[in-house]
Amino acid sequence: MERKLRYAMVGGGPGAFIGAVHRTAVRLDGLAEIVAGAFSSSAEKSKETGTELHLDPNRVYGSWQELIEKEASRTTDRLDFISIVTPNFLHYPVAKAALEAGFDVVCDKPMTMTVEESEDLCRTVTKTGRLFALTHNYTGYPMVKEARKLVSDGKLGELRKIVVEYPQGWLSTLLESDGQKQAVWRSDPEKAGISSALGDIGTHCENLVHYITGLEMDSMLADLGTVVAGRVLEDDASILIKYKGGARGILYCSQISIGEENALTIRVYGSKAALEWKQENPNYLRMKYPDAPEQILKRGSGYLGAAAAHASRLPGGHPEAFIEAFANIYTSAIRCMAARAAGAAPTALDNDYPTVQDGARGIHFIHTAVDSHKRQSWVDASYSPPK
Amino acid sequence: MERKLRYAMVGGGPGAFIGAVHRTAVRLDGLAEIVAGAFSSSAEKSKETGTELHLDPNRVYGSWQELIEKEASRTTDRLDFISIVTPNFLHYPVAKAALEAGFDVVCDKPMTMTVEESEDLCRTVTKTGRLFALTHNYTGYPMVKEARKLVSDGKLGELRKIVVEYPQGWLSTLLESDGQKQAVWRSDPEKAGISSALGDIGTHCENLVHYITGLEMDSMLADLGTVVAGRVLEDDASILIKYKGGARGILYCSQISIGEENALTIRVYGSKAALEWKQENPNYLRMKYPDAPEQILKRGSGYLGAAAAHASRLPGGHPEAFIEAFANIYTSAIRCMAARAAGAAPTALDNDYPTVQDGARGIHFIHTAVDSHKRQSWVDASYSPPK
Amino acid sequence: MERKLRYAMVGGGPGAFIGAVHRTAVRLDGLAEIVAGAFSSSAEKSKETGTELHLDPNRVYGSWQELIEKEASRTTDRLDFISIVTPNFLHYPVAKAALEAGFDVVCDKPMTMTVEESEDLCRTVTKTGRLFALTHNYTGYPMVKEARKLVSDGKLGELRKIVVEYPQGWLSTLLESDGQKQAVWRSDPEKAGISSALGDIGTHCENLVHYITGLEMDSMLADLGTVVAGRVLEDDASILIKYKGGARGILYCSQISIGEENALTIRVYGSKAALEWKQENPNYLRMKYPDAPEQILKRGSGYLGAAAAHASRLPGGHPEAFIEAFANIYTSAIRCMAARAAGAAPTALDNDYPTVQDGARGIHFIHTAVDSHKRQSWVDASYSPPK
Amino acid sequence: MERKLRYAMVGGGPGAFIGAVHRTAVRLDGLAEIVAGAFSSSAEKSKETGTELHLDPNRVYGSWQELIEKEASRTTDRLDFISIVTPNFLHYPVAKAALEAGFDVVCDKPMTMTVEESEDLCRTVTKTGRLFALTHNYTGYPMVKEARKLVSDGKLGELRKIVVEYPQGWLSTLLESDGQKQAVWRSDPEKAGISSALGDIGTHCENLVHYITGLEMDSMLADLGTVVAGRVLEDDASILIKYKGGARGILYCSQISIGEENALTIRVYGSKAALEWKQENPNYLRMKYPDAPEQILKRGSGYLGAAAAHASRLPGGHPEAFIEAFANIYTSAIRCMAARAAGAAPTALDNDYPTVQDGARGIHFIHTAVDSHKRQSWVDASYSPPK
Repeated sequence: MERKLRYAMVGGGPGAFIGAVHRTAVRLDGLAEIVAGAFSSSAEKSKETGTELHLDPNRVYGSWQELIEKEASRTTDRLDFISIVTPNFLHYPVAKAALEAGFDVVCDKPMTMTVEESEDLCRTVTKTGRLFALTHNYTGYPMVKEARKLVSDGKLGELRKIVVEYPQGWLSTLLESDGQKQAVWRSDPEKAGISSALGDIGTHCENLVHYITGLEMDSMLADLGTVVAGRVLEDDASILIKYKGGARGILYCSQISIGEENALTIRVYGSKAALEWKQENPNYLRMKYPDAPEQILKRGSGYLGAAAAHASRLPGGHPEAFIEAFANIYTSAIRCMAARAAGAAPTALDNDYPTVQDGARGIHFIHTAVDSHKRQSWVDASYSPPK
Repeated sequence: MERKLRYAMVGGGPGAFIGAVHRTAVRLDGLAEIVAGAFSSSAEKSKETGTELHLDPNRVYGSWQELIEKEASRTTDRLDFISIVTPNFLHYPVAKAALEAGFDVVCDKPMTMTVEESEDLCRTVTKTGRLFALTHNYTGYPMVKEARKLVSDGKLGELRKIVVEYPQGWLSTLLESDGQKQAVWRSDPEKAGISSALGDIGTHCENLVHYITGLEMDSMLADLGTVVAGRVLEDDASILIKYKGGARGILYCSQISIGEENALTIRVYGSKAALEWKQENPNYLRMKYPDAPEQILKRGSGYLGAAAAHASRLPGGHPEAFIEAFANIYTSAIRCMAARAAGAAPTALDNDYPTVQDGARGIHFIHTAVDSHKRQSWVDASYSPPK
Repeated sequence: MERKLRYAMVGGGPGAFIGAVHRTAVRLDGLAEIVAGAFSSSAEKSKETGTELHLDPNRVYGSWQELIEKEASRTTDRLDFISIVTPNFLHYPVAKAALEAGFDVVCDKPMTMTVEESEDLCRTVTKTGRLFALTHNYTGYPMVKEARKLVSDGKLGELRKIVVEYPQGWLSTLLESDGQKQAVWRSDPEKAGISSALGDIGTHCENLVHYITGLEMDSMLADLGTVVAGRVLEDDASILIKYKGGARGILYCSQISIGEENALTIRVYGSKAALEWKQENPNYLRMKYPDAPEQILKRGSGYLGAAAAHASRLPGGHPEAFIEAFANIYTSAIRCMAARAAGAAPTALDNDYPTVQDGARGIHFIHTAVDSHKRQSWVDASYSPPK
Repeated sequence: MERKLRYAMVGGGPGAFIGAVHRTAVRLDGLAEIVAGAFSSSAEKSKETGTELHLDPNRVYGSWQELIEKEASRTTDRLDFISIVTPNFLHYPVAKAALEAGFDVVCDKPMTMTVEESEDLCRTVTKTGRLFALTHNYTGYPMVKEARKLVSDGKLGELRKIVVEYPQGWLSTLLESDGQKQAVWRSDPEKAGISSALGDIGTHCENLVHYITGLEMDSMLADLGTVVAGRVLEDDASILIKYKGGARGILYCSQISIGEENALTIRVYGSKAALEWKQENPNYLRMKYPDAPEQILKRGSGYLGAAAAHASRLPGGHPEAFIEAFANIYTSAIRCMAARAAGAAPTALDNDYPTVQDGARGIHFIHTAVDSHKRQSWVDASYSPPK
C-alpha cells in the first residue's frame, strides 16, 4: 500500500470495551491510523480519549454529527473511513450519515435495530458505492476460513447437521443493576434493540454458520429465556433450524451459562466427514471421518488453503488469537479500500469480510427468532437481503 | 455375600453386541454367575453360545418361554434373576413373564414398545414384589454419581440450563441394507418400536438428566430427522425442553453425526456453578464457577462423595471405564437382591440402579417426542409413572 | 477353550491392592477361575480372603510353600497356573518353586530382587519348559499395541528420540510412617529391593519403550533423588539413555510429582513421524507428521492393526481402560497355556505377553540405574538376558 | 505517556522472521513507532523494508554503524531506543555501540556469542546507565506471570522438581541445505555461536524456569545430539539439572522432534502443589494438588494476581497469544524508558522484563551445557552475572 489510511472512530470512549479492541486490531498490521474521533456523547470524555491517543484536539468531537460534518469538509488529510463502535442504536444513523458523506464504514454488530434500517443501509451502500464492513470478527480466524474451504471443496459431502453454540456466563447475575457499563446498555431495549443474547452473540453464531457452510435458513423454532430476575431482554436462547436443502441445525447462545467465558463452538456434520472448531483455542480445527483417524489441522501448516494462509501472521505453534482475527476483518477491508482508491480490483483473498448484506441477514435472524419465541412455534426464516 | 447369585440370560447369542457386555459386566465383580440361557430364537444358535460359556446343556433353551417354564420348576440351584438383552420388542413379554414366575429381572433399555406396556410392567413389579433393574448403564459411572451429589448438595444453586447430547455416527450410511445385525433390528419398527435414535440413545440422555438433576419435564418440542435415504425410523433428534421449576434444556441425539463414536456429554448450568461430564473420558468431571478456577474432579480422589467412592474399584489415574459403569448397575442390583434374600434392607449406596419407573419415564419420553415431532409443536411432557 | 483354567494366588490378602486387580482381570474374560490361595503369611488373613472368594477352605493355605506342596500333589482339579502378587522379595522364590513344581506362572513386577535371581529364573523357565508371564500390564493396552505396529511397520522412520515419563505424587509425604501398607513395603529395601520408584514404575517405562520400539539400551546416566526426608529409597529418577543404533531417550519416573496420579506417557520421535500415548486416557494414540494434520487414532476403529483389534472388547467410544489392559496380559498367557495343554501352538496374537526375559531386562535396568547414580556418571547399559 | 517513543531497528529485512514480529509487537499497544532502520547489510534490501514501512528514506541505512553514527548526531526527533533483531553474532557489537551512543536497547536472544561478551555488556549497561531489555518473550505471557506469583506466594511449597521442555520439529530434515534463511544462519557457528537448539530455544527454557521459580543452577549434565546427518551444531539436547536448594530438573529442547511445532511446556512440582503451563495454549495454567481437584486458571479472571492482570488486554475467553506476550516485553520496557525520561521511577508492574543479567545467565547456560556434553559428565553450573 502507498500510504497508511486514516480513520475516525465513533464511540469507544472511557469504559467502553470494544472500541479499544477495534483500535488495537487496526494497529496490529499498521495499515491505517486513527486521526479523529467522537468517542463519547460527552465532549469531555471524548477529549479524554483523544488525548490518550495523541490525536490532534481539533479532530476530536463531542458528537458524531459534528465529526461527520467537519471531517467531510476537510480538504487535506481526509478520512478514508469511519469505524463505528457505539451501542447498537447508533449504528444505523451514524453509518448512513457516514456513507452519504462519502466515507467507507467499518461497523460493529448487530448492524441496526430493525430490519427496515438494515435494508435501508443495504440500499445506501449500493447507492453510495462505498465499502461497508461489519465486524463479525470470528470469521477472521484462519481456521474458520479453512473450515469454509473444506466445506466448499466438498470434503464433508452433503451437509446434514450443524450445531453451533455460544455460551457465556457473564450475565449470570443482574450485573446491569451494578452499573457495569457493558451490561447496562446491552440489557436496555432502547440501546440494544429487541434482544440481548441474540444481538450480542447469537448473531455471531448465525453468521459463522453462514460463512462456513453457505446454508440459508428455511424455518426456525426459538425458545428464549429471560433467566435472571429483573432483566428485561432474553439472556438465553435455544433455536432449532431447518436449512434449505435439508440440513438441520441447533443454535444455542447464552449469557447465563455460568462459568463459561466465550465458548463459541461450531460442529458441521456432512455425509462424508465432520468438522469442529472452538473459538477459545482457535488455532486448531478438527476433522472427523467414519473410517479414518480424527485429524487436528493446525494454523500455520503448509497443507492449509490460501485463505487460511493469507489470514496468518506467525508460524505454527506460535499461537494467534482474538486480536489477529479481528485485525483480519479490518485488514481485508482496508486493503480493499486502498485497492479501490488506487482504481484496482481487490484480490479475492482480501475481498473476504462481512458485508452489509451479512448484517441484514443477522438482523432478520434476530427478529425472526424473537417472533418465533413469541408465537412458540416454527416460523418461516427464509430471507434474501436487498443488494 | 454368602454365595454367588445365579442368573439366566435371554438374548445375547451369536452376533449380538450387548449380551456379551452384560455377561462381562456381571463377571467383573464375581457376584453372580450365568447358569442358563435362551440366547437366540434359534435353538442351535442358543446352544452354540451355551457351549462357549461352558453351561450345562440342559439349561440352554431354544425359547425364552421354555427357559422360564423349566427354570421356574427347578428345585435346586434355582435362578436368582433373569437378564434380558433381546431386541426391544421382547423386553416386555419376557420381563413380565419372568417377574410373574418369581424371578428378579435386569433388563436392557428401552424398557418396552409402548407406554401401556411400561405402565403394566410398573404394576407387575409392584404386584410381584420382585426387583427390576434397567441397564441405563451411564448412571453407573462414579463421576455421574458425583455430579448427582453436587447438584443435590446445592453446589450448582438453582438449575437453569441443561445441555445433553449423544452424537454417534455409525448409521451415517444405510448400514441396515448391508445386513449388519444391530442396524437391522434397530431400524425395524417391528423390533425397535416407534423410534431408533431416541430409543437407543436419546433415552439415555433423558435418564442421565433425570438421574443427575432430578428435574421433571414440563413440555418439549422435538424435531426428528430421518436423514439417510431409505431409512424408516429417525436417525437424528433435536429437542427443546422446559423443565418444571423453570430450567430449560437442549437434548440432541444422533446416529448420523459422522465421525462421532459414543459422545454422550452433559452440561448443567446453575445459578452458582456448572458441571460438565463426557462419557468418552469418564474419569473426570468439570466444575465451572463464575469467580474461581475451573476444577477437574477425578475419580478415585479422596474429596469425592460416598456414592462415587462406592462405585470405584481402582485408585485415581488407573482409569476405569464403560465396563465398570455397566457392572455397577448389576452389582448394585445383585447386592440388593442378596440383601432381600437374606431378609435385610439393602444399603442406600447399593440401592442405586435404574428402576421400572425410570424405564416408564423413558418410554413416555420417546413417545412424547415422536408426538411433538408429528405435530411440529410444543407438547405437554409432564409424566408420573405408576408406582 | 475347552474349559476354564484353574489358578492359585500367592499374596493378595487383606489390605493389598494389586491382588484384587489380578483377580478382577482374570474374571473379566472368564477364561480361568481361582481355586486356591496363600493370600497372606498370616493363615488367618489368608483364610479371610479365601472365604470372601468362596474358595474351598482346604485349598486356602497359610504359606506359599504349603500351597505349592499340597497343590502339586493333587490328582484332580489340578492347578494350571499360579499367580504371584506378593511384595517383590518373594517373587523369585515363589516363582522358582512353582515352575519347578510344574506350574505355569504369572508374576507381578519387578520380577526379582537381584540380577542373579532374574537370570536364574530365565534358566528355570527354559529348563522346566513352563510358561512365565510378567504383568507389565501397560503393554496390554490396544493403543500401545498399535504404537508398536506403527513403529514396526516403519511409519515413524528411523527412531531418534524417546521421551517416557511416569510421574506419580502419592509419596509426596512420608506416607510409610503412617503405616500405609503399600508405602511401607515399597519403601523397605528388605521387601522392595534396592529401589522404590524405579522398581515400581520406572521399570514399566523401560518395558514400554522396549515393547513399542524394540530398542536396546547402550548406555545411561541416572540421577536419583530421595526427596522426602526420612525415606530410605529413591522416590524420583531422571535418566538419560543412549540406545543402540543412535536414538536418545529421556526416562523420568517419580513418586513425588505432587498432584499427578498415574501419568505414564510415551512419545517416540522418528525421522518420518512421531507418536504419543497417555495411559490416563488410553483409548487414543496421537500421530504427528511434519507436513500433514496430527491424527488421533481411536481404539475400536477399523483402520487399526490386528493386535489392537484382538486386544479390544468394546466398540469405539465405549471406553476401555486399565482393567482390560491388565486382563489382556492374563488372557494372552491363559490362551497360550490352553493351546500348549491342547498340544497346539499359540497364535501369534495370543503369544504377546511380557516374558521372563523382559523381567530380567527390567531388573538389569534398575540395577544399572542405581549404579549410574552412585557413580554419577554414564555407565554401560547394554544387556542380553539369558534365553 | 506524553508521547510515542521513537525507535530504530537493526536487522529484520526481507526474509527475516523475527523482525516483523518485533515491529508488530511494538505496534500492538501503540506506545512507540519505528522511525529508522538498518534492516539488512545490503543497502538495497534495507531500503526495500524502509519503503514498506513508510519510513523517511534519510533514516534508512545500509549498515548499523551508519545508523548509530547518524542517529546519535540528530538533534530533533531523536531515537529513544534501538531494537536489535539480527543473527546472534551481531547482537553484541550493535548493542554495545548503541548503549555507548546513549540509546536504550531491546535485543533478541541469545544475547551474545560468548560469556565474555555477555559480561562486558552487563558492565556496559551499568556504565552507561541505559535500559537494556532482552526479548525472552515467553515470560511476557500473563499466565507465566501468574505462575511466578504462585511460586513466590508459597502456594507450591518447597520446590522439588522442574520439568521444562521445548520440542520443535522444523529441523527434522537438513533444511539449511535448501537455503531456508532461518535454518542457514542458525546452523552456522559463525552466525549462531556454539549452539543451535540451546541458543535458539533451550535458553528460553532456562529463562522460563528462572523467571517462574527464581531457582539458580548448581550443576548440570548435558547430552547434546546432532541428529540430522550433515548438520554442524546440535539439534537436540537433554539436560539434567541440580538446583541450589535441592530441587532437580529436566530440560529438554529439540529441533528434530518431528511433528512438534513450538511446544514449550513447564511443570513445577513442589511439596504442596504443582503447576503446568503450555505455550501453545497459553491462556490457561493448571494447578494440581494432592487432595483437591485440579484447577484450570484462566487469563482474564478476577482471581489472578496484579501482574497477570496488568499483562492482559482482553477479557477471559477472548484468547490472547504470542504477539501479546511479545508486546508485553516491549511495553514494559517502553514504559520504563518513558518513566526514566520523565524522571520518574517505573512502577513495579512495568519493571518486569528480561535484563542484561538474564541474558548473561542464558549465555553461561549455553556454554556450560556444551562443556558438560563435551566432557560427558556433570559440571558446575553455578553462576552470578556481573551487575
